[in-house]
This record gives sequence, structure tokens and C-alpha cells, in this order.
Amino acid sequence: MPRDVILVDPLPRTLDLIMEPGVRHRLEQLGELFISEDKPMSAEQIDDLLPETVLIFGQTDMHTERLNRAQRLKAIINVESNFLPNIDYKTCVERGIWVITPAAAFASPVAEAALGLGLDLARGFTEADRDFRAGREQYGLAGNEGTFRFAGAPVGIIGFGDLGRQFRELIRPFKNPVRVFDPWLPAEVITTLDCMPSSLEDLLYASQLVFVFASVTSENQSFLGEAEFAMMKKGAAFLLMSRAAVVDFPAMIAAAASGHIRVATDVFPQEPVELDDPVRKAPGILLSAHRSGGTRDAFYALGSMAVADAELIMRGLPPQLCRRADLATVNRLRSKPVDIS
Amino acid sequence: MPRDVILVDPLPRTLDLIMEPGVRHRLEQLGELFISEDKPMSAEQIDDLLPETVLIFGQTDMHTERLNRAQRLKAIINVESNFLPNIDYKTCVERGIWVITPAAAFASPVAEAALGLGLDLARGFTEADRDFRAGREQYGLAGNEGTFRFAGAPVGIIGFGDLGRQFRELIRPFKNPVRVFDPWLPAEVITTLDCMPSSLEDLLYASQLVFVFASVTSENQSFLGEAEFAMMKKGAAFLLMSRAAVVDFPAMIAAAASGHIRVATDVFPQEPVELDDPVRKAPGILLSAHRSGGTRDAFYALGSMAVADAELIMRGLPPQLCRRADLATVNRLRSKPVDIS
Amino acid sequence: MPRDVILVDPLPRTLDLIMEPGVRHRLEQLGELFISEDKPMSAEQIDDLLPETVLIFGQTDMHTERLNRAQRLKAIINVESNFLPNIDYKTCVERGIWVITPAAAFASPVAEAALGLGLDLARGFTEADRDFRAGREQYGLAGNEGTFRFAGAPVGIIGFGDLGRQFRELIRPFKNPVRVFDPWLPAEVITTLDCMPSSLEDLLYASQLVFVFASVTSENQSFLGEAEFAMMKKGAAFLLMSRAAVVDFPAMIAAAASGHIRVATDVFPQEPVELDDPVRKAPGILLSAHRSGGTRDAFYALGSMAVADAELIMRGLPPQLCRRADLATVNRLRSKPVDIS
Amino acid sequence: MPRDVILVDPLPRTLDLIMEPGVRHRLEQLGELFISEDKPMSAEQIDDLLPETVLIFGQTDMHTERLNRAQRLKAIINVESNFLPNIDYKTCVERGIWVITPAAAFASPVAEAALGLGLDLARGFTEADRDFRAGREQYGLAGNEGTFRFAGAPVGIIGFGDLGRQFRELIRPFKNPVRVFDPWLPAEVITTLDCMPSSLEDLLYASQLVFVFASVTSENQSFLGEAEFAMMKKGAAFLLMSRAAVVDFPAMIAAAASGHIRVATDVFPQEPVELDDPVRKAPGILLSAHRSGGTRDAFYALGSMAVADAELIMRGLPPQLCRRADLATVNRLRSKPVDIS
Repeated sequence: MPRDVILVDPLPRTLDLIMEPGVRHRLEQLGELFISEDKPMSAEQIDDLLPETVLIFGQTDMHTERLNRAQRLKAIINVESNFLPNIDYKTCVERGIWVITPAAAFASPVAEAALGLGLDLARGFTEADRDFRAGREQYGLAGNEGTFRFAGAPVGIIGFGDLGRQFRELIRPFKNPVRVFDPWLPAEVITTLDCMPSSLEDLLYASQLVFVFASVTSENQSFLGEAEFAMMKKGAAFLLMSRAAVVDFPAMIAAAASGHIRVATDVFPQEPVELDDPVRKAPGILLSAHRSGGTRDAFYALGSMAVADAELIMRGLPPQLCRRADLATVNRLRSKPVDIS
Repeated sequence: MPRDVILVDPLPRTLDLIMEPGVRHRLEQLGELFISEDKPMSAEQIDDLLPETVLIFGQTDMHTERLNRAQRLKAIINVESNFLPNIDYKTCVERGIWVITPAAAFASPVAEAALGLGLDLARGFTEADRDFRAGREQYGLAGNEGTFRFAGAPVGIIGFGDLGRQFRELIRPFKNPVRVFDPWLPAEVITTLDCMPSSLEDLLYASQLVFVFASVTSENQSFLGEAEFAMMKKGAAFLLMSRAAVVDFPAMIAAAASGHIRVATDVFPQEPVELDDPVRKAPGILLSAHRSGGTRDAFYALGSMAVADAELIMRGLPPQLCRRADLATVNRLRSKPVDIS
Repeated sequence: MPRDVILVDPLPRTLDLIMEPGVRHRLEQLGELFISEDKPMSAEQIDDLLPETVLIFGQTDMHTERLNRAQRLKAIINVESNFLPNIDYKTCVERGIWVITPAAAFASPVAEAALGLGLDLARGFTEADRDFRAGREQYGLAGNEGTFRFAGAPVGIIGFGDLGRQFRELIRPFKNPVRVFDPWLPAEVITTLDCMPSSLEDLLYASQLVFVFASVTSENQSFLGEAEFAMMKKGAAFLLMSRAAVVDFPAMIAAAASGHIRVATDVFPQEPVELDDPVRKAPGILLSAHRSGGTRDAFYALGSMAVADAELIMRGLPPQLCRRADLATVNRLRSKPVDIS
Repeated sequence: MPRDVILVDPLPRTLDLIMEPGVRHRLEQLGELFISEDKPMSAEQIDDLLPETVLIFGQTDMHTERLNRAQRLKAIINVESNFLPNIDYKTCVERGIWVITPAAAFASPVAEAALGLGLDLARGFTEADRDFRAGREQYGLAGNEGTFRFAGAPVGIIGFGDLGRQFRELIRPFKNPVRVFDPWLPAEVITTLDCMPSSLEDLLYASQLVFVFASVTSENQSFLGEAEFAMMKKGAAFLLMSRAAVVDFPAMIAAAASGHIRVATDVFPQEPVELDDPVRKAPGILLSAHRSGGTRDAFYALGSMAVADAELIMRGLPPQLCRRADLATVNRLRSKPVDIS
């Protein structure tokens, strides 16, 4: 009887990063682990293992030829969280090989950070602390000049996947009217969660806070630029939580600097940001170094979701926690791989 | 038929501060307004008006003798929000004169600010922005070192009146276990809102975030001091949202400076804070200049709640929105009057 | 030092009915109990005990003269749940004697029953079961003829005290638009709970289900009669959960019999209902024998709320769980005392 | 340019049953409709249309040969709601043809009915109405003998798909501890919704109300029988909301008749039930003629969900509302087709 090989090739992740001991133990019950953590697994080792491989944890290139050698393969589980163009997805579909990713692991910390940053832009905590330290604080009503209440303020959400929906749940007690723009979704998905389906324009005109959770696709690069920022209300807040490529970054900085809008961003066109990048001095922007999602618990959730679905797949059941690589969407995605865990 | 006089003596508030035109119009339907906004109403004018006065909006001294002259008086509505020892409360009780205050108007903005500041201490937004501007930001997991997730973290609430309860509702989506210490409340009030009644000690030992919403009373001045801060977990967050007098302020600053806990405070022993006060340079503290409650909408809510209850009282019905000055509690309260609106 | 007497005169309740052993034990810590359960306490015994009495649990007549003899009395706690005209309320107010009742103990079971009966009228469970037993059931869509979905249906709530508000919380997941008619409340109380303040007429015209939780007052007896039922939509549901005296009962039966509306009632003008009362054969009515509130747990809650507030009062603090007998409202109430526990 | 044919073969449904005019109009924008409603579409017509067919709405047999003729086919949308063994699912997977069904359309009315029936078993409405009509009603506490409060009672859910999860949301305000048994799901799916993953045995022992929403599979027929009913608490409630085949029906009737448990059932081994079937006289059972799901709005939701997903598919996007026929599960399902709409 052949052994069940589990090929673990998780760079830029490591197993320790994403699995607590109990979860790793569960993984080891599913087969024999072959792990390459310090560098991508060698082509030689991959070729050697593929005939016995049942599960791949990682971002290993899996072109047609390799898939052909892996006749026992049941699933490829991407633990980086973005589907890349290094897999023959069509063959996977035809063979019934699951290609999945536990990307939703980051939704909870990102949604929490989005609310924290949104409250900060609305109520001005960071700026008020800076003013206090500089001896120019104002008290009471005067100290709230130029701020607004988050509660009840019109909110716009751009991109209504896992991140957007978890964020929506977090703000329920604030009773905001919420508009959603997501061209990949039918209205029912949006109205079921008590939001209003909206065009991008209507959302920008109407919202006091705009949260961007959209993935990058072949169709939406830089779709938020000067014209879009100009549509926003004076003093409104714009929060970029997902991918820098969906906005015209210099236009965003300019809109903040002009005082027209307030901005918070967790992502940058290039990371790490250059030491002399002018964004470091930019006024009207709250800066966060791609740290919204990457919390300790989120990486562990990545691993535990991956293993829980692997267990189901090995029992012949469909995965329940990870996102599937639909051909329809995977061909449109254009996210860069992450360099830093 | 005698006219119904409404005596308006709202300092440090003004009518414009607390009433939008529509609300003021409703007030004018209830009687004839006599207003002193730039200074406290003169004793002479008060004495002159009292026999016809049905409602007082303000913090006018109302000792026994004045009450005796005000035989048609139905209610004294404090629009500052703290009951002061300048009223013969006992006579008011005996005469059935309502003494009330719309203090709950501040609960919504304070609760919102408490969550914002709590998210900031947990996830480190203000500090991360400061680091980014200084060129020492860290990305991803490294950028989250020393932070913790707000979601699911044990929360302690000290003082469970309007502020504490509204805050509790705001954090429901985060599914925190919540302990409450409030010696004036039976357990049922706490458990009904899905919190655990707790001793002060247990709360301090168990909580990752401690929020103080307690009023100052004759019994609780400086009840949170060095010993109490020492009980808190290393790295836990302490947020002072109500009154500076309930803590030993220097001990709080020291606990933050030592790195044992993180602190956010909206109140200070003396406001405005002196320019050379060392708190301005203190490490580990997020500073907010008594601005959590005093938002534009909160002052208008103060006025609209006051007028709505005045309408009920004039119809012979009990007030529904304002807090009543129970003899049992009013004698214990020791809040200083507010100097700044 | 005088002893603290607690006078227990709870008919039609008994202590065993309303207190579990642990709660009774807590009561015994507050003073020395003198109990009359099988009959009202004798005037002689009352007079004897009053000088030492600190708390009264029960519906004892407390006219001026008796109050004068009870100089140490701190509270009268009505455990029947309706304030009666057998107390000199004014003197209690002047003396600072709390007169309170844990009536809210019944809110939870009544709200639950209201939803159960409302779902039954909407979806037709009782009638469908009857049809099935008679061999005339219909399946699938045909079996739902004449029914409607509770989810999303416009709901009207008449009377928005403890009962109405707890009911409102129970139906949140159904996302009904909710109109509220309550002339004793300002709009803020209603809008805060995400309902629409409404006139009685608008509510009746617009609602698919009308729930009545109103108390009987000197002003609202039989205020829901033929004209009001005629305003309701054909096929709408009317649920009488509080007091029979607020409706014209024969008109309600006639409206149900005509097929214009569906009715459920938990109360009747006279209880027990006569064996030959035609209501027993009435079509279109779901009958419930005043059993919505009187559950085992509710009676125990009555006792534990009463004792928890007594504990606060003995500490000099205001009660937190019981309703207070405001002069303004108590003079308007006209509920009959309950005959049956 | 070829025309886009939409083959509509919906028996036992009809287009009018499942689509309001506006929805049908949207469907007509997607292609040219060919409809067979009074009988299954003829093999001849199907063969004729397949080369141009892009969408199939219905339960048409689609064996390998037919799929081979339908080279432009993008989706087969089952509008009956159970996947049947009349499709070559493997070929559909290989070709990227979506096979989906809007089964979740029934989740909302079934969940609502489950709560209504659960409240009825707990609080005894149907039985109390029957007693009242028979002149043997009891009032107050006596009238609640043998009942229990739904609020707070331990609930067990067997089968945690769309139905179970919507039901779980409906009962949130009741604050029940909820155990879930579903062998196809990882614990995370259950704990995320604030429920406890449980073995079947623990669930049966611990729950005061057990709700069955499980589908029939090759593995679970009659898995709830005499032994399982015996594990339940005396007086507990058992509600069969999904498929009769998952229980040993005579054992369920016997358990109810013995007084050990109370039962409500919406489904029967054979429907319609024979006129002389003893279940019609069975004591302790609440009978519902497969009417929980088949409400007017649910059939319309079936159609609008189907059309919304068809619109996405025609744009090259994945469906968002319908359930997909995973090979892993579809081979295990054993539901009988519905005979009656």
C-alpha cells in the first residue's frame, strides 16, 4: 500500500508560523510530511514525491506536467492567501483536485483594524494625542472641531468578500447606513446583510467613510483616482485596507494633503516604503505598515483552517473554510505575492 | 390665568449650544422663556420669576426658601449633567418636583471613543503611525509585536451606568468575555447584558482591557492606585473615560511609564492641563483632552432629551429620558462642575 | 437596638411561589420575617409590627395612619405586580419610602409567548394540526394558503413598557418594520430601539400583526373597538397580551368571526371564563388562559428581583430592577388585582 | 452568430410559480426561452435545442451523451432543490459547467416554522387552545404545568446547512446554549456561530429541544431511532424539519405516544399521508403537512436566486447564491424528488 505524502512548501510562510503544535499534530495524522521551509522545495524532490503526494501545502508551481505525475493528488492548499498563475487550474478542475486557500483567516484582524482606523479618522485620536503632546490641545466641543461621529455616519464598502462582510458585522451597533459596491455580487448578497447595493459613484458621493477591501483584478487597477476622490464629501474619510494597486496612490496622497479628505492606508505600492518616501511626511494620512492582517492569531488561523479542510478532503468531503480557486475568478486576480510574512 | 414661566439659566451651556431651532421651538410651546446665558441669572430676576415658574432649565441654586416661593414648579432640569449640592433635594422629593438631567446624552460619543481608544491601545495605531513617520516601522507580523487582538480579549468595565452599558453594546460583535464591577448594582442588571459580575480585584487580574466609567462619589476617590495597577496583567490596557478623581493619577502615569500597562485617558485632575505638565511627555499614554463626550451631536441630544421630558412633565407624566436625582445617590456624588463646554 | 422587621403579606402569592431557597435565605439576612400567607395579615398584627418594620413584601393596605406608625419603613414591595389604590402614595413620596414592584419579571415569558402566538397566527400551525387530524390537510404551497410570513411583515406594538420592549428584542432577527403607539413615551425611546413612533390609526392601517401590551388606565378602557378592528388589513393578526379591559371584547370576537382578522388572546374580561361562554366556540381565535406570563421561572424572578432591590435599599441605594410607583402614573392605573397566581 | 437558448424544464415547478414578472423579464434578457411546463420537455425538443443551449433551468436528464451535444452549456440550474442522479456530474466538473440549485430559498420559511413549532411544543399553545375549547383549561401557573421556557433551554441542531444556520440566527435573542451535530463540518464553522460541536449522543442527552435539519444521505437513513429517542430527556421536544427518511418514523411516534418526548413533524414517509394513517390520531405530536418551506415568497426566492446566479454565470463570474453540486456530496445524497410543489 502506498504511503500518503504531504508536500509542505510554504514560503514565505513556515509551518511554525502558521501551526500551533496541536494543529501540526492533526496534519501529521493525515500523511507523511516532507517539508522545505528555508527555501522553495527543489524540483528534484518534488518530482520524486509527486506520485505519492495526496496534499500540497504551499505555493509550489504545479504545471500540467507535474499534475500528470501526481495522480493521487487531492488538494493544493495555498497558505500565502493569493492564488498565483503558477498552477494549471483547468486540469485541477477536470481532475477534481481542490485548489483552495484559507485567506479568510485575515478577515477578522483586518476588519477590526478597519474599524479602529475608521474611528481614529472620525474622532481624531491620533491627531489629538499629537496636539496634546505639542501643547495645542483643545477641550470639549472645541477639541472636536472638524471631527464627526462614527455612529450613524453613512459608510461605503468597496469589495464585499470576507473582509468587507466581517467589517460589516463589526459596525452593526453603530447603525450606519451602509452602501456596498461590488460588481461581482448580486444584490441579494448585499441586501441580506442589511446594506444597499450601490454604484461606485453613488457610494463615493454619499459616504462619510469609504472602506476599500477590493482585490486587484485585471480590470480594476487604479480604479480609484483623482476623479473619484473629488466625488467624496469634504472631510470624509478614505481607508485603504486591501491592495495599493486599486488606487492611484499619488492622487490619494494629494487628496489628503489638500485637506479635501482624510486617509488611512495599510498598504503601499512598494513595501517596505523607502526611507525618503514623501508619504512619511504627508499630512492628513494615518500610516499603517501592512500590519492590519498579519497578527499572531491570524497566522495560526491560516494553518488551522487549512488542516481542518484537509481533514475533510481526505474523508472525501468538500472543504468548508477555505476559498476555492474558481476558474472564473482566478484568471482575473492580479495580486502580487507577499514578500514579508 | 397665570402665565407659565420657564427659567433658563444654563451656564456653562447656552441654549444655542444645546438646542437646534426645532427643539427650541418645542420648548417655547411649553411656556414663556426667560433666559440668562452670558452670566448666571441674577437673584433679583429669579426671585421675581419664581412664583410663575413651572420649569427651570439650568443649574440655578434652589435652596429651601426659593423652592417655597416656587409653588408652581414642576421640574428642575440640570443641563450640565452633574447634580450639584445647590438644591434642597429633600424638599423637591416631598413636593414631587422632578430634578433630572439628560446626562445620558454623552453616553453614545463616550462609548464610541472608548472603543476607538481601546482598539488603538490593543492594535497600536497611534504608535505605529508615529513609528512610520520616524522611519522605524515594521511590516506584517513584526509590526504587530507587543499588540493584541481586541476581539475576544477579556474586558473589564468599572462603573455600569449609561456609559458602561452603551459601551457594552458597542463591543458585542467582538465577543469579549466582559466582567463588570459596580457596587451599586445587583447582579441581575449585569448578567442580563451578558456580563459577569465581578469583584474589583478579579476584574483587574483577569482583564486585558479595563475601562473606567465610574462617577466620583464620597466613597470612591482615588480607589484605583498603585496596588490596583500592579494587579493588572503586563501589557494590559487601562482607559480612564469618566473622572480623574477616581484614580491616583501619578500612580497611573507611573504604571504606564514603567511599561507595565498601557493607558489612555480622557480626563485630568486639572483641566486645562498646564503647559509644562509632565504628562505631555509621558510614555505609554494616549492623551485625549476631555473630548470624548463633548461632540456637537451630544450637546444637541442634551437639549432634545431635556425638552422631550419637559413635555411629558407638563402633561403630568413621568420623564423617560433623563436621570432622576435620587436622594440615595445624589448625596454621594462628588463630581466637580464642568468649566468648559 | 430595635430589630428590623420584614412584613410579608404576599397574597395571592406565597413565599414558596416566588422565592427559591437561596433567595429566601438572602431575604432573611435583611431582617426578621413575619409572614402571613394563607390569609391577609391581620390588622392587629400589622399594627403591632409597624413601628419596627423596615420592609413590606406584599399588598398590605398602607393608608396615611399606618404609614405614620411605620417611621422606620424604607420600602413597600408589591409582589402581585399591579399598583393598587390602597396606599397613600403621596406620603410615601414625601417620606422617601420606595413603593416598587418587580412586574418586569413577567416580561420575558410574555414576550416569548407573544412571538409564539404571532408565529402561529401567521403560519397557521394550530389550524394546520387541526386540519391534519380531520383529514383535510393540504401540502406545500396549497397548505400555506391564507398564511403569511412573519419575517419582514409590518408589526405594530401598542404599549411599549417592559413587555413591549422585550418583545421588540425577540423579533429583531425577523427584520420587521415595527411601529409603536405609546402616548406616555417620547419618540426617542421608540427610535432608539429601531422602531417608528406612530399614531394608533397609522399603526392599525399599516401592520400585518398588532400586539397589545398596554396597561389599563383611566383613559384607555375599551379604546380598541369595532372602528379600530375595521382599520386593520384583511387577514391581519391581532394579539391581546396584556389586559382585556383595553379592548371591546365582543367587537374583537366579532371581527375574528367575520374572517376580517385573526385573533389570539391571553386574557378575558372575566377569568375563569364561564363554561358556556361562546368564546370557547369562536372561530378565528387562538385561546390562551392567562398563561403567557405565569411560568415557574417568572414567579421566581419576581422574588429574586424583589430581594435584590431590597438589599440595595437597605444599603441606602436606589432600587435597580423594580418599577417605581410614580405618582404621575399610579393615579391613572386601573388594572384589576389578579385572582389566580 | 448563434442564438443563446435557455431551456426551461422545471417540473414539478412552473415558471409562474417561481418567478415574478420582473424576474422573468431579467431571465429573458439572458437568452431565448424554450419552456415545457405541463410535461417534461420531449427528448426530441431537447436534442434539437442542446447545441444552442447556454442555460438549463430544470431537472432535465443530462447524461454524458446529451452533455456532449451541449457544447455551449454553461450551467444547469436545478429549481426543484434536490440534486438527482440524472446528470453526469463528473463531465460537468470537467467541462466547467455549473450545476447549482437555489435550495437555500427554503431556509428562511423553514427556520421560521421551526421556531414557531418549537415555541408551541415548549409553551403548549396548540394543546392549550384545544383544552380551552374543551372546557378544561387551567389559568396562570397551573396552566403552564408540563411546559418549559424556550428562552435559555439547551437546544440541539442536527444538520447545520442553510436551514440549521438560519434557524440558529433566529433564536439568538433567546440565549440558548446550542449544540450542533454535523459530521460533514469542521468545528470552526460551528463555533463561529456561537454553537458547540457535539456528538449525536451528547446532543440528545443534553438538549431540551432537538431540531433535525439533516439531508438524507447514503449513510444516515433512519439514524434516529428508538435508542436515540430513549437518550432524550423526559419531556424534551423533537422537531423533524427536513426529511422523514432520517428517522425511524414508527419509533418516533411511539416515543411521543409514551409521553417520553413531544414531537412536531413537517414530513412523513409517504406524502400525502393516507386518510386512515394512525399518525392522524397520534398523541403528543404536532402535525404539519410539509408546509414549512413551501411558502409563496420562498418559491419566488427560488426563481430570483436562480436568475441572479445565471446573470453572473453569463458574465463569466461564479454563482453566489445557489449551492453547488460538489461531486463529494452529490454522490451521497438520497433525497426523493418532491411530488407536490
